[in-house]
Order: sequence, then structure tokens, then C-alpha cells
Amino acid sequence: METNRLEAFSDGVIAIIITIMVLELKVPHGPDLAALAPLLPVFLSYVLSFVYVGIYWNNHHHMFQLAETVNGAVLWANLHLLFWLSLLPFSTGWMGENHFERWPTVLYGANLMFCAIAFFVLQTSIIRHDGADGLLARTVAGDFKGKVSPLFYAAGIACAWFFAAWTGLAFFVLAALLWLVPDRRMERAAQTPQG
Amino acid sequence: METNRLEAFSDGVIAIIITIMVLELKVPHGPDLAALAPLLPVFLSYVLSFVYVGIYWNNHHHMFQLAETVNGAVLWANLHLLFWLSLLPFSTGWMGENHFERWPTVLYGANLMFCAIAFFVLQTSIIRHDGADGLLARTVAGDFKGKVSPLFYAAGIACAWFFAAWTGLAFFVLAALLWLVPDRRMERAAQTPQG
Amino acid sequence: METNRLEAFSDGVIAIIITIMVLELKVPHGPDLAALAPLLPVFLSYVLSFVYVGIYWNNHHHMFQLAETVNGAVLWANLHLLFWLSLLPFSTGWMGENHFERWPTVLYGANLMFCAIAFFVLQTSIIRHDGADGLLARTVAGDFKGKVSPLFYAAGIACAWFFAAWTGLAFFVLAALLWLVPDRRMERAAQTPQG
Amino acid sequence: METNRLEAFSDGVIAIIITIMVLELKVPHGPDLAALAPLLPVFLSYVLSFVYVGIYWNNHHHMFQLAETVNGAVLWANLHLLFWLSLLPFSTGWMGENHFERWPTVLYGANLMFCAIAFFVLQTSIIRHDGADGLLARTVAGDFKGKVSPLFYAAGIACAWFFAAWTGLAFFVLAALLWLVPDRRMERAAQTPQG
Repeated sequence: METNRLEAFSDGVIAIIITIMVLELKVPHGPDLAALAPLLPVFLSYVLSFVYVGIYWNNHHHMFQLAETVNGAVLWANLHLLFWLSLLPFSTGWMGENHFERWPTVLYGANLMFCAIAFFVLQTSIIRHDGADGLLARTVAGDFKGKVSPLFYAAGIACAWFFAAWTGLAFFVLAALLWLVPDRRMERAAQTPQG
Repeated sequence: METNRLEAFSDGVIAIIITIMVLELKVPHGPDLAALAPLLPVFLSYVLSFVYVGIYWNNHHHMFQLAETVNGAVLWANLHLLFWLSLLPFSTGWMGENHFERWPTVLYGANLMFCAIAFFVLQTSIIRHDGADGLLARTVAGDFKGKVSPLFYAAGIACAWFFAAWTGLAFFVLAALLWLVPDRRMERAAQTPQG
Repeated sequence: METNRLEAFSDGVIAIIITIMVLELKVPHGPDLAALAPLLPVFLSYVLSFVYVGIYWNNHHHMFQLAETVNGAVLWANLHLLFWLSLLPFSTGWMGENHFERWPTVLYGANLMFCAIAFFVLQTSIIRHDGADGLLARTVAGDFKGKVSPLFYAAGIACAWFFAAWTGLAFFVLAALLWLVPDRRMERAAQTPQG
Repeated sequence: METNRLEAFSDGVIAIIITIMVLELKVPHGPDLAALAPLLPVFLSYVLSFVYVGIYWNNHHHMFQLAETVNGAVLWANLHLLFWLSLLPFSTGWMGENHFERWPTVLYGANLMFCAIAFFVLQTSIIRHDGADGLLARTVAGDFKGKVSPLFYAAGIACAWFFAAWTGLAFFVLAALLWLVPDRRMERAAQTPQG
């Protein structure tokens, strides 16, 4: 099986996820600027999740450029990733509406963690199908960010749980920034030990 | 007519169906973990329907890889399938919000049954267009799961109606698991009698 | 400009229109079958609009198979069609929630009429771009249904306005059935006078 | 990286944005024509935003026809544009529900401005990747509308803020009309000084 229809379907699902999150930004009734103030945490959590879904789309795009064909296991691993991504509008909404309180922030971090695990499972299923000599297998060996970000989510969940929600949130923002920083220098650094 | 635009349109509709179901998971107002508890049945019914829509996308994908061209009848048979799939967010929501009571569970099973019938009609319309020697016709001959799952839905509807809703639900979960189990061994077993 | 991106974008918009209409089918709170009864008119209007959007997707698909390239005017004529289609979820919802009363039925008919006009404008803009010798121009000459259905909408609007809503609705259902009937015989009949 | 998947994903997101805006047109409860009257400003703001999203899709389509490949920076610049576009349903809804009062109109103008800036950033990132000799770089040199429309948004924001909301709105409508006018004559005029 070729990858194009899997990519088109995933594009569709991710496009909807990234867009329906904005529906949590309920239109306020008053025409004053003050009516926007209570929406600020909802807006900020929307920005964070938009960036995360964008990161996943980016990584999904890169990964499937390196995959040549797919099998049934890859299709299901992909649906598994889409499942956890599809919960982001819910966990984002809960966190935003409750102004970044403890449990919503922990749940948000858990959602990010499950997305990361699902992405790893998908990657592994492609490599198992393509063989250890495939393009993806060789690229993943030097994948610094993919290995580090789950640690950020775990640290963030622990901090939100036992200290304060904003410390956990800081880890989730940092992990997102890590992905936004241009790749080149960081990837070279990560690849040197293996070279 | 080639199949790509039919596939792209179906991907779009299925992607939206699988994603808007999550909108039934209404964001709770309180920030406590206890606020999530009433959502559990809604969440579980979402998981079940996500798996079912995923199964249909998978099967749709496999089927149209074997179809070479389509005609007007196939276009309408495809829209007919999409119609029944589009009702899944409704029947899922009704079942989840009413904690798997009798009638919502029966309706959910009926919806699954209509989807299965519509899939069968679509398959038949492709085979009629492609001819009995087409790739799809030969593959379908050994299609064990497609023949067995309607029996599961019928049994589930009857059990939910006359016994208890959870017994019906068990059949719907079993039928979903049947599709998730990797194909090879089961399909070989199913094909042996014909070989 | 080639037609593929215009087709992909239109597929996306039409897929969303056909799917979000189902959101008007609000999940009832009670678990009894009686709770579904008030939804019947909403459901029936959903079925009718699903069929209409399906018809438009079908016709759009056929039309762009005959168009080779597009220009800016075609892009805007296409967006104009998508605009009127995008209002169908609203007019469908108003008609369904008010149990097919007079004004909602008139508005629904007007919406269908504007869609038909927009489709005609789009067709004309493609023919103007492709030239009167293009494939589409020659096919349209014998297009019986496209010429007859606006008369049905006009008659339906008048009947709903001055007599009873259900008489108008009957015309809208008839016009939809006209498109669902397999093409061959009818089209041959329509083409004979010109042949 | 080729541009097709970026285009497909953007098509999906833009298709959803243009369609979910119609969800702000809440179905009224009464069956009288009078029940539609309060929806008029919501409808008019929907029309305006539909046209704007259509303009962005059109320009996005034209721009990526001139781009040959993309890099990571272009992917993120594209997501950045989609982010501001995704806020249009919110700012449109706020403006429509409050009957074009001052602050909602200012916010709407600011949203348009951010979209224009994001489009410019995306254009620049493609040109930086393709080189100053690329097709896009040469076309952009004579891009009259792209340079003028931010001035309209700025003027509109200032007018809505200090005078009356409708004067600001007039600028936003004018800027939209500017894009709808067929290109040829205007573009030739704009290109002559450089020729």
C-alpha cells in the first residue's frame, strides 16, 4: 500500500482537530474589550495546542516522506495517534476554562504524553515494516527531540501535580519551543556522538 | 471515472465524522478529577465508535485499492455508506449520555448494522461495475469478517433488546476486536475451504 | 491553472457541509424511544439535504472531469457555489426544527434555487474559459435535469408560500429524485431532439 | 520537500474555517420571517469573512503554484498564517453578534491585519528559500494589492476606533472588493513603472 491516502486522511483529521479547538473560544456577549478578558486563558491554551498540533503535523509529514509503503499495522498505529490527538481539543478546553488549575494541567500533560507514545509506536511500526536499513530507521537514530520531549512531559506532569500548575505548564511550553527552534545546529550536535 | 476524487471526498467526510464525535465530550466546568467521572461512559462510547469509523476507513481504503474505475451507481452507493456513518456521532452520543441504556444501545447496533449493509451494497456495486473477474470480486469471496460481523450486530441488537444492554454492547465490542486482530491467520483459515 | 486543487478544496468544503448538518440532530436527554420522536422532522430534513449536497458533489465531480484548466473567474464562481451550499445546514435546521412550516420551507427552496443559479454561473464561467467547443459545452447542451430542476424549485417556493408547506416540499423531494434516477435513458431522451 | 501535502493540509484547514463560520448563524426558534431579522448582522459579517477566506485561499493557491519546494521555515510560516485565519470565525462572530460595534470592529480589523502580515511573512519565507530569481520573487515585485490592502486595514482600524465603526467597516469591505475586481488591468498598471 502506498502512503498517499493515509497522508490525506491524516491531514483531514489533523486539520479538523486544529480548527475545532477554536470553537472553545466562545463568542462573548458584550461588545466591550473587558468581555474578552475572561477568554485570555482559553486563548493561551489554544495557542499552545495549535503549536503542538502543528508540531505533530510537521513531524508526521517528515516521517511519511521517509516511509515508502505501509501495511495494516501502520494504518492502525496511525489511527491510534490520531485518537490521542483528537482528545487535545477536550483537554485544552478543560485547562483553558479552569485557568490552568492543577488537574486540568496534569490531564493536558498526560494527553501530550500519550500523543508522544503513540507517535513513537507509529514510528516503530513503520521501521518494522520498512526494515532497519530504511531511510526512517537511519534518521531516527539521531532523533534528539523525540527522545527528550517525553521527559519534559513527565517532568511537567509531576510538577503540576506536586508543586504548582504553572511549573508544569512551563515544561509543556519549553518542549514546544524545543521543536520550534530550527533544527540544524541541534541535530548536528545530537548526531555527532553516533557519527 | 477514476477513483481518486471519490476517495478524497470520502476521506474528508470520514475524517470529520471521526473528529466531531469528540465534541460530545463536553468540557466540564469544575477543575476536579471528580468532574470527569460522569464523562466516562461518553468517553468509552467515543472510543468504540472511533475504532468502528477507523475500521470502515481501513476497509474503504482496501476496497478502493482493488477498484479501478467507478460509475454513477458506485458514487451513490458510497454516499449511502457515508450517510449511515454520519449518523454514528448521534447514536454514539445518545448511548454515551444515557450510560448504555437499552434503547440507545439497540439504536447504536442498528446504526452499525445499516453501515454494514451499506458497505455490502457498495462492494456489490463495485463488483457489478468491475465484473466478476475483477480483483475485488476474487478477494471478497474469502472475506470472512465481512460476512460474520452483521451476525454479531444482529445478536447484539437482540440481546440489548430482550436481555440487558451490556450483553448487546459486548457483541459490538467483540465485532470491533474481530477487525482489529491481524488478518493473516484468520484470512488463511477462511480461504482454505475455497482453495 | 489545473483543476486538482480547486477540486480538493471543494471536496473539503462539501464534506464539511454534508457532515455538520448532522450536528442539528441534537442528542436527546432521555433514554426512551419516545425521546427520538420530536427529532423526526429534523432527521427527514437532514436526509433531504444530504441527498442534495450529494447531488451537488456528484455534478461538481462530473463537471470538473470535463474542464481542463481554470482561471480566476472559475475560482470565484466555485466559491460562490460553495457559499450557497454552506447555508444549507442553516436553512435545513430552520426547516427541521419548525416542522416544515411555511417560511422555513420557502427559505429552504430559495436556498436550493440560489445553489442552482450558482451552479449554472460556474458552468458558464468554465465554458467561457474553455471555449464553446470544449467537452463541457457540448455535454451541457443536452443537460435536461439542470434546466428542469430550477422550475421545480420555483414551483415549490410558490406552492409553499401560497398553499401549504408540504406541497412545496413535495417539489423539492421530486427534484431530488429526478437526479437520483439513473441517467442513461433520460439523458438519451433529452439528447435526441438535438442529435 | 514538495508542496502538495502542505497545500492539501492548508486546503483542509481553510475549508473548515470557511464552513464553521456558518455555525455562528444559530437556527432561530420561531418559524416567522421576523425571527430571521436579528440574524442579519451575523449573516453580513459571515458574507464578508467568507469573501476574505476565499481571497486568502485564492492567493495561497496562486502563491504555491509559483513555489517549487518548501523547507521547515515555510511549513511554520504557513501554520502561522493558518493560525490567524483560524481566529476569523471568532472575530466575525463577535462583530456580528454585537451589530458592528466599535471594539468588535477594531478587533476584526486587527485580525485581518495579522492575516495580511502572516501572508507577507509566508511569501518572504518562500522567496528566501527559492532565491530572488524564483518565479514568486519576480511576480511579487509587481504585487499592487498585497502592498495596498494593509493600509486599508490600518485606516479601517483607526476609523473604527476614533470615528464610527461603520467607517472602519467600509475600509474592510473596500479592501475585499479590491481583490474581487479582475486582475488584469490593475496588475498591468502596477507593473508598468517597474517594466
